[in-house]
Amino acid sequence: MTDPIRPTDDGARAQARRLLDAARHGALGVIGADGLPMVSRVALRPMGADLLLLVSDLSRHAAPLGRGATVSLLIGEAGAASDPLAAPRLTLAARPLPEDKAARREAWLEWHPKAALYYEFADFRMLRLETLSGFLVGGFGRAFDLRRADLENPDPAA
Amino acid sequence: MTDPIRPTDDGARAQARRLLDAARHGALGVIGADGLPMVSRVALRPMGADLLLLVSDLSRHAAPLGRGATVSLLIGEAGAASDPLAAPRLTLAARPLPEDKAARREAWLEWHPKAALYYEFADFRMLRLETLSGFLVGGFGRAFDLRRADLENPDPAA
Repeated sequence: MTDPIRPTDDGARAQARRLLDAARHGALGVIGADGLPMVSRVALRPMGADLLLLVSDLSRHAAPLGRGATVSLLIGEAGAASDPLAAPRLTLAARPLPEDKAARREAWLEWHPKAALYYEFADFRMLRLETLSGFLVGGFGRAFDLRRADLENPDPAA
Repeated sequence: MTDPIRPTDDGARAQARRLLDAARHGALGVIGADGLPMVSRVALRPMGADLLLLVSDLSRHAAPLGRGATVSLLIGEAGAASDPLAAPRLTLAARPLPEDKAARREAWLEWHPKAALYYEFADFRMLRLETLSGFLVGGFGRAFDLRRADLENPDPAA
C-alpha cells in the first residue's frame, strides 16, 4: 500500500490558497453534544490564512464553536463537473476564536450583502477560524498535507 | 429565545427527498483517530432513504467508516446564489454498513461513469449509509428535524 500523500510543493500551496481566497461558504464539521459528528453549511470570508464566520447562537454548531473546540472545514466547489471528485477541495482544521463583530461588519457585508438584514441581531456573533493545518485534494490521487505556513501568503502585498 | 425548528410538514418532507434523490456528492463528517471532526467530499448515489458510498481504504475517513461509527453527511448545492445560506441543504446522521460491491457496480457507474477506471481496485469498497435522521434547512430560518420515515418515499412505485 503506497502512501497517497505527495510532498507539498509550490503548486499545491498555490492551489490551496486559491481555494481559501475564494471561500464564500463551506461545510463545517463539529462534534455535537451527543458526541457525534455534525456537518452544516456556513457562510465565510477569508482573512489571510484564517476565515471569518458569522454564527447564530440558535444554530446547532454554536455550542462547540463557543467552546473553542477544534473544527473541520471543507471548502471548494464541486461544481457541475461530471466527476465530483475531480474538483479540488481543501479541508482545514481550525480553532474558533471570538472576533469584534462591529469591526468586521464592513468586511462581512462586502462578501455577504444580504446579511445586512440580520447582522445586528443579538444572537449573531463573529468568530475567526484560526487555521491550524490543511489537507488538500487537488484531484483524483493528488493529496497533500499542509501546515498553516503553507497557507499564508508569501507576499503580504499580493 | 424562540425555537427555530418548525413542525415537519409535507413540504419539508418533499424538499428533503428532492435533495436526497439528487445527491451525487456530499460533505462527509467523521471523527478521526485524533478525536477531532474531519470533513471530506465524497461521491454518492441515493438508494431510497439511504445512500451508496464508494470508499478507498487509503482515504482518511476509511477507518471510522469501517468501524460503523455514525457519520454526518451534508448534501445540497450552494450553487451560484448570491447568498450561500439561501440554498436548501440537508444534514443526515447515518450508519455505514458494508454492501456487495459487485452487485452495486452498475448502479454506481450509471451515476459515476469515470469510476470505471478504479471501481475494481482492491482498496475500494462499497458501503451503504443507512439514514438515521435528518436536519433540513430549507432557507434562512426554515429548519426542520426529520425522522428516517420522513425521507422514505411514500409511494414505492414513484
